[in-house]
Parts: sequence; C-alpha cells; structure tokens
Amino acid sequence: MVGGARSVVIVGASAAGLRCACRLKRLKPGWSVRVVDQRQVLSYAACGLPYVLSGDLPDDQDVRKTSYGVVRDVEYFARYKGVEVLGGRRAIEIRDGVLEVEDDSGTETLEWDDLVLATGARPRRLPSQPDSERVRSFHVWEDVAPLHGGLARGEISSVAVVGAGLVGCELAEAFASLWGAEVTLIEAADRPLPQVLDPEVAACVAASLESNGVRLLLGAEVGSLRTETTGVKVAVGGDEIGADVAVVAIGVEPAVELAARAGINLGPTGAIAVDDRLATSMPGVWAAGDCVECRHAVTGEPAYLPLGSLANRQGRCLANVLAGSEERFPAVAGAVAVKVFDVNVAAVGLTRSAARQVGMAARSAWITAEDTAHYWPEASDIHISLVYEVGTERVLGVQAVGAGETVKRIDVATQLISRGATLSDLGNIEHAYAPPFAPALDPLAVAAFVAANQEEGVTGSQPTSDPADHVVLDVRLAEETEHDSFPAGGVRAVPLGALRERLNELNGKRWLVVCERGPRSAEAARLLSRHGFEAEYLGGGMSWLRASRRRGSG
Amino acid sequence: MVGGARSVVIVGASAAGLRCACRLKRLKPGWSVRVVDQRQVLSYAACGLPYVLSGDLPDDQDVRKTSYGVVRDVEYFARYKGVEVLGGRRAIEIRDGVLEVEDDSGTETLEWDDLVLATGARPRRLPSQPDSERVRSFHVWEDVAPLHGGLARGEISSVAVVGAGLVGCELAEAFASLWGAEVTLIEAADRPLPQVLDPEVAACVAASLESNGVRLLLGAEVGSLRTETTGVKVAVGGDEIGADVAVVAIGVEPAVELAARAGINLGPTGAIAVDDRLATSMPGVWAAGDCVECRHAVTGEPAYLPLGSLANRQGRCLANVLAGSEERFPAVAGAVAVKVFDVNVAAVGLTRSAARQVGMAARSAWITAEDTAHYWPEASDIHISLVYEVGTERVLGVQAVGAGETVKRIDVATQLISRGATLSDLGNIEHAYAPPFAPALDPLAVAAFVAANQEEGVTGSQPTSDPADHVVLDVRLAEETEHDSFPAGGVRAVPLGALRERLNELNGKRWLVVCERGPRSAEAARLLSRHGFEAEYLGGGMSWLRASRRRGSG
Repeated sequence: MVGGARSVVIVGASAAGLRCACRLKRLKPGWSVRVVDQRQVLSYAACGLPYVLSGDLPDDQDVRKTSYGVVRDVEYFARYKGVEVLGGRRAIEIRDGVLEVEDDSGTETLEWDDLVLATGARPRRLPSQPDSERVRSFHVWEDVAPLHGGLARGEISSVAVVGAGLVGCELAEAFASLWGAEVTLIEAADRPLPQVLDPEVAACVAASLESNGVRLLLGAEVGSLRTETTGVKVAVGGDEIGADVAVVAIGVEPAVELAARAGINLGPTGAIAVDDRLATSMPGVWAAGDCVECRHAVTGEPAYLPLGSLANRQGRCLANVLAGSEERFPAVAGAVAVKVFDVNVAAVGLTRSAARQVGMAARSAWITAEDTAHYWPEASDIHISLVYEVGTERVLGVQAVGAGETVKRIDVATQLISRGATLSDLGNIEHAYAPPFAPALDPLAVAAFVAANQEEGVTGSQPTSDPADHVVLDVRLAEETEHDSFPAGGVRAVPLGALRERLNELNGKRWLVVCERGPRSAEAARLLSRHGFEAEYLGGGMSWLRASRRRGSG
Repeated sequence: MVGGARSVVIVGASAAGLRCACRLKRLKPGWSVRVVDQRQVLSYAACGLPYVLSGDLPDDQDVRKTSYGVVRDVEYFARYKGVEVLGGRRAIEIRDGVLEVEDDSGTETLEWDDLVLATGARPRRLPSQPDSERVRSFHVWEDVAPLHGGLARGEISSVAVVGAGLVGCELAEAFASLWGAEVTLIEAADRPLPQVLDPEVAACVAASLESNGVRLLLGAEVGSLRTETTGVKVAVGGDEIGADVAVVAIGVEPAVELAARAGINLGPTGAIAVDDRLATSMPGVWAAGDCVECRHAVTGEPAYLPLGSLANRQGRCLANVLAGSEERFPAVAGAVAVKVFDVNVAAVGLTRSAARQVGMAARSAWITAEDTAHYWPEASDIHISLVYEVGTERVLGVQAVGAGETVKRIDVATQLISRGATLSDLGNIEHAYAPPFAPALDPLAVAAFVAANQEEGVTGSQPTSDPADHVVLDVRLAEETEHDSFPAGGVRAVPLGALRERLNELNGKRWLVVCERGPRSAEAARLLSRHGFEAEYLGGGMSWLRASRRRGSG
C-alpha cells in the first residue's frame, strides 16, 4: 500500500480530528479522508465558549467561524479543505479494517486503512448529580445558549459554579462581569486552580475573584444537588447554597468507550495509551486530542492534559505521521493560561504540592517583580512562584499571576522546562529588553536568582505561613510605610539604608523582614543572618500581601 | 589568597560594573569592592533616556531611582550595598596589581587583586561631525536636559535624527509624539533598523514612522553637517535638510583605550576579547558590558552586542566567577525589542541578509497571524519573518512587528535559537493557550509550518518583490474585497471556497495568490500548483500590504 492511495477514517470532528483531516488531505490529496461525528455543530473553538456566555463575543457563531467569517460546517470542510465530514453518525464498533457507524436511519460500515480516534472528552459529573435543566455542564457549543438565554431573560440571576478549575474560574467571571449574576464558586480544595497553582499564587486569584464580587467557598465538598421548581440547592458542609442554576465544572474525562470495547489499551490515567507516534496498541489505529494521555516532560510519566492547543498540535503531528513523516510528538510540560477578571494567570510544569506527591524534593522561590522597567508608567507587579528540585536544582514548574505580562514568562519557562533546565539556565535566559516590555533582568531570571540564593541560605519565609505570626522588621522607607503599614502589631520599622548602623537596636529576636517586593528584605535578612540573627523574609513582599488579601474589599 | 579577603577594583559605574560590585559585595562582604568612574551621575537606566526626552517619564530623576524612589548615587551604594563608588576619577593606566586614577586634585593608585573593566561604550560620530550644541549625541543622562529644555522652551521645533537604528527610532518617536517636533529620520541603509530587520518587517516600521508624521529618508548617506546660528544643515545626496538641531544616533563603539594601552587583547569586533568566564588576556583582569564582545549563539563567532540586559547579566555572572563559582557566560542570540509609536518590534538571531553575508544558505518564511484567538475582540495582527538555513532547517532568526504581543514571541524564539533549534522544534513549541493570550497554534509555530511547507514546494513570494508586478488571484470573499481591493490592475477574484470548481477559468498564467493573512492563498497556491499552474502567494497577505504601505497617509 505504500505510495498508493489510502483510506483514512477519523472518529471525532474535534480540534485534533479536523486538524488531522485537513492537514492530511493537503499532504495527500488523492487519499480518502473521512471524519465521522455524532454532532451536527462540530467545529468550533471550545475555549471561546465562556466568552460567548460572558458577552465578550457578541454572537454564538463567532466561535464557529474562520477569521474571515465563514462558518466551519460540513460544507466548509468539503469546499475549502476537500475533507468529507459525516455528521450525525455515531461510531459503534471497530473491527478489522472496518468502522461500524449508525445514524437515525440505521448502521453502515466504513472501510479504513488507518483509523484515527479523536473522540475527545466529556465533563465529569458529581456522584449525586441529577439530570435537570437547573444543573448543567459547560462543555459543548449547545451548553451556552440555555444559560445565555436565561441570563438575558432575567431568569438566571444567581449561579452556583461547582469547581474552581480553569473553566470554573472563567465561568465565574462570565456570569458576574457583564450579567452581574450573584456567583458562588465552590471548590473542594483549599484554593482555586489547585491543580496548577500553589497557595501563594492561588491566593491572588482568590482575591481577584472575591474583590469582583464572587462568593468563593474553599475546602467545600459538595454533598448533594437538589433541584426545586424555582432553583437548585447545593449542599456544602452543613450549609445549603441556593441558586437559579448550578454549573458543574469539575474537569473532564476522556471518552474512551469505543477504544475500550475494541480492546485498545488504556493507560494509567484512564485515557488511551499512545506512543510518541500517536499509535495505539492496535495496528492501524491512532489517537489524538482529549482522549489520549501524553508523556509529561517533568515526570517522564503518562499524564492526562486535555488542552486545546495540545489537541491541535497532535492532530497536525498525526497527519504528518500518517503521510509518512518520521515526526514524533514530544513530551508535554502542561502550560496553561487563564484570565480571571483583572488578573492574568499562567503556569507550567508541576506545582510544589504535585511534585512532592510524586516523591520529588521540591522547594519554591516566590517573588514579586515589575513586568516592565520599574519606571515605565504602565509597569505592573507580577507574582511568580518557581518550583525546583533540591539537589539537582532542576526547574520543575513556574506559576505567575498579575495584571500585566504574565503569560509570556510562562511561555518562556515552558521552553526551558521541556528541556530539563536548571536554575542556572533560567537565571541566564536572554530576553528582548526595552523599558516598555521588560526589566533589564527578567522576572523569570530574578526568580531563579532568588531560588539559588535560598539554596545558599538566604531564606524566604514559607509562602503558606502567616506573616502575622512573626515579629516583623519592615525595611521600607518612612514614606512607604506611612499609609501602608504591615497588618499586625509588633512591627519594627528600620529602612534598609539605615539598617547597617542600627543593627545594635535589634536583638534576641527571630525576624521576618518585609519590604515592598522582596529584594530589600532579602538583602536585610542576609545582613541580619550574617550578624547572628535568625531572619527570613516575605518573598512576595507587601505587594503580594495586598494582592492576596483583597477579599471582602469588593 | 584563596579564601582570604581580596581587593577588587571595577572601572566604570555602568550597569555591568555596578551589578558586579553589588553582587560581589553580597557574596563576599569582607572583600574590598571599589568602583571608579569619571562621571558624577553614574547609575541610571540608559535605555529609559528616550522616555525622559519624550515626557513619558515626568522627571529626569526617574531613571536614576530605585523602584522605591531612592536615587542611586554614591551614598546609596554605600548605605544600601556596602559598595564604595569613587566618582569623578578617571582611570589612566593599568599596571601589575595597580590602577592609576586621576581626579582634579591629582593622581592616585588603587591596588587590586582582581580588576574589572566595565568601561562601556561611546556614541559613534560621523566623519564630518562638528563640535556644536546643535549637533548632539544621545547616550548619557546629561544628553537629555539640553534637548528637553530646548523643546520645552520652543527653541527646538525641527530635528534631524541621523541613523534609524534602535535609538534613532526611539528618538524619532520621542521628538514627534509629545512635542510635535518636525522630525526627519535619515538612514543610510534602505530600511529602518537594518541590522535587526529584513525588508518585509522593516517596511511595517517605516510605515509606522511615516504615518506618525516622521519624514523618513532611506538610502540617504549624510555628506556633511553644517551648523548655522539658527540651526543646522544636513547634506543628504544633493539635498540639504534644515533643522534646529541634529542628533547623531549611528550606534556605539566600545570604550577600550584603557585596555588597549595595557596590551589587553581586543577581538575582531574591536571590543575587548573575553573568554566565557569574562577573563581578558591579562591575568587578574576581567571585563563585562558594552566594552566586551561575546560569542554569537547562531554563528559561534565573536559579536559586539551592546545591550543593557546583557550588561546586567554579565555583571552578575562576573561577580559569581570572582567569588569562586564555576559559572560561565553563555552565547548570545542578540534578542532586541523597541517600541516605534504604535507598533512593537522585536527580533533575535540573524536577519536573512546578515546570514547570507556570513555565507549561510538562508531563506525566510513570512507570515501574518493574529496574536490572540482570532475571535478575541482585542486580537491584532502580528507580522513575522522567520529566517532558517536551507538543508539543516536550523532556525537562524525571527523578527516580529505588530500592535500586540510581538515581544513574547521573540522571547520564546530566543530560547530555541540559543539551543540550535530546527523548524520542527519551533513547530512543536508548547505555549500557554487561552483565547485572550494566543491562538491555539501560536504564530511562531505557524511560521515554522509555513517555512516547512515552503521547503516542500509551496512557495511564498519573495518578500522584497513588488506584488504589483504579478498577475494576481485574490481568493478572499466578495465582502472582503469589496472595500479593500488589491492595489493593482488585472486582479482576478475567485474565493477559495469556489476555486476547486472554477479552476478551468484560470489558464496559461503565472499567478500570485493573495488573501487577508496568507493561509488561504497558500492553500490556493498549493491547489494551483497541483493542477499545473505556476503559483506563489503573498506570505503576509493584504494585512501586511496595508501595514507596510501606510506611508503618506499620516
């Protein structure tokens, strides 16, 4: 068959499936490329759906259109891409060289030389989740209209969102910002975005949510969801949260039934196992997108990372493989980004907690820095947590939050983490510097320096410990502390510039040093340690303290 | 001496010198660290000076201050850093273990165990450049006030800027934007930013300059500069440009006299030669910052890259080396960024022209893409040129221009280019994706795909060729072409969606296919080629054409 025309059948008109189909048809115009999907609305930007709900995008067709305004329907793929999409067909069974599909009128069989599974994922459900219009998922295009309509008609004015993951946080903003709905965001973990953020960064996200009017319930396990004629009651601990509608956003799980029935191997995550050519355990059967697991760049282990950008890249890679390329799909570091009201949040790699869970000796450095030159009028603070392995000094993960340029730091860190970089590599990053775009030393490099200093004994406080529990030395200037004092009693104020000559005023204490962003307090802590004091400093400084404690102010 | 207290003398209170001094004093508090400089105003953000001139920064002290508002003067370094700065002292001669310096009252000698040369750079001068208040450089803090004062007092209302490099472009904006001065920007090369941009990207910068009222003279060699009582006359070709003042911004040259007099080796670029530990050819003498050359990550050869971020990193690295670390300073890819009015410009590595000059078989891919998801309301176009080596497919350089997120793409590309990445590596980059921050496939990856396609025979037009010279096939929709037709006669319009069935209408021609951003025209060119036509397409599309031809509209 090599060199001859092949027949490729793709199950799932998802990002991965369609990307694969279009690319393959481009590379091999003579091949038969057919895509089977049970849906009729089938090619849209799923990541854009929260912004249809919020009204940022005025029309629900916007996420279905190309950049030049053509809706990506069955006709589009035929006319523009030469790809045959068979909508409304459900794939039933994989047999040797044949896929059985059914539609309303019966079943048929499609012959294939190569079969691609791009069956995607589906939303996870709560154990107690009732089937009701008042308890919804938010996953496919059709999920938007009922909620959007209810908001527009004034029937929905209060919402309980279960799960403060990426989608849950986007939904909280979507419901609250334009529509002004009363939003309760319920999360079982002790922080929002628990899978991608450690507490010190998550605290800034929590503060952003709360200062924008979202009621955030953390450590809150949902017991039951009870629907009533007028709304829904969500049992959380001893309480019951009432809302017009509940949206369950507790993540997704891979849709693997078709593969499992055919005896194709699933991996430890429950998703379809594929090699780095995206081949499954069954000859001639391949898989890509949200139904597969990939290899994690940090752990080297299988990981389930259902991300839109990944699905697109896998679809393209698989087309190349099917067309005969030697290409391999690389390991994935898990870069993610999310806008939560006025803060941009991004992360890559492992959190400190995740790294420790898999047995790594992980430690963090934790900084605040300006995202541009500090004197640039639009400079804004960025809070970064850098997770590294003690001993090897390998960078395991980076998390960032701030109003400005946070995502680019994660994009840069991703390239380094994918390549096994150490603190020294991160400290040596080269970046395109001009005052409007970055400081002369990039915040990522600064985080690496702080981590290296920490390994040499200049100790940052534990991000999780409460600064109010310490005796505090505030080394800012008088004009800085005047209107912004540290929120606790027993604070000594000695500006850094006077500290050397006033060391004799400090004695017998274990100090927590604070300043605006961290560098001065680190310098002071180093000076104190050198003179026999016990001292640590607040890594993110007062800037972090303010950003992480806005709760209740909105 | 190992382990004992050492005496370190640093010549030059520049970014490199002071960064080195402060870091070293932190690592080795018992050492003597002295910095000698002939200036009195000595620690400021030189890259911020254009923004003092423009008025973006309200006070000329802003670039001298720390983020918490303390001016970095001699007292600051003593009190905050424990570093002794000896201002107003000129270094005269290096002898074995001794540096001779002079001030107004005479000469003295400073003993050193380690000597660091951080003597920086000085502005290059035109051969014909007179010494006059009306012909100025723009390099040090003191250069700002006379120009700023002249503008504020209305004595300067027209300026001739000689050199459209990074500083020249910043100056053009600074003079024109707030002050409304009449600016003529004179560049000997055929485009602005010739050292970092190829013509297709530089054209967008030229258009930005011109649409903001800057008179741009390209290919314009300055013959003479003649001062008069009321102004200055700049002879360019047969013309004479009159202005109240001329600013010469034709780059800098390393200040190496002290080193050269001592017999320290200079490299082929004329800057001080150092190894990857920043050691000069003379034992115990080290150098960092704008006076040294570094190793270029792409060519492997010595390069002179006087960049502020680099100087900071070298200063820090050298402190670590002097304190006993095994650290080495890595090769440099030459990442730069500059804001030119409403466009953000950034580049890294070699331009196509520079690569060909050093004998590499360089080719470019050239694209337009949205910087966020295309449906995101704030999406804006980014124009990227990707330079690669034919055969090896190694990425040699990337240039980007656009109103939005251009710089982060260069920061990411820098990490890859530093590590010898190929087109395949760039196509596989992982990035943090959410609709407000990036498309699902990042523009960098798209550029790599386009380059790979090009190597497989889907040909983009030469960026430098004039689209008006071809027979054009416009494959956009009727609603797109209606109010925005291709600026030339003989254009056929067939929307891509109808092209397969209307191929028979096209014959016997060599086509240049155009669309809005490139992807559709690439698809169409592929289709045409497959059916025996000769076809290439306009890489950057109509978007690029508009962005690069705004001249005269302002």
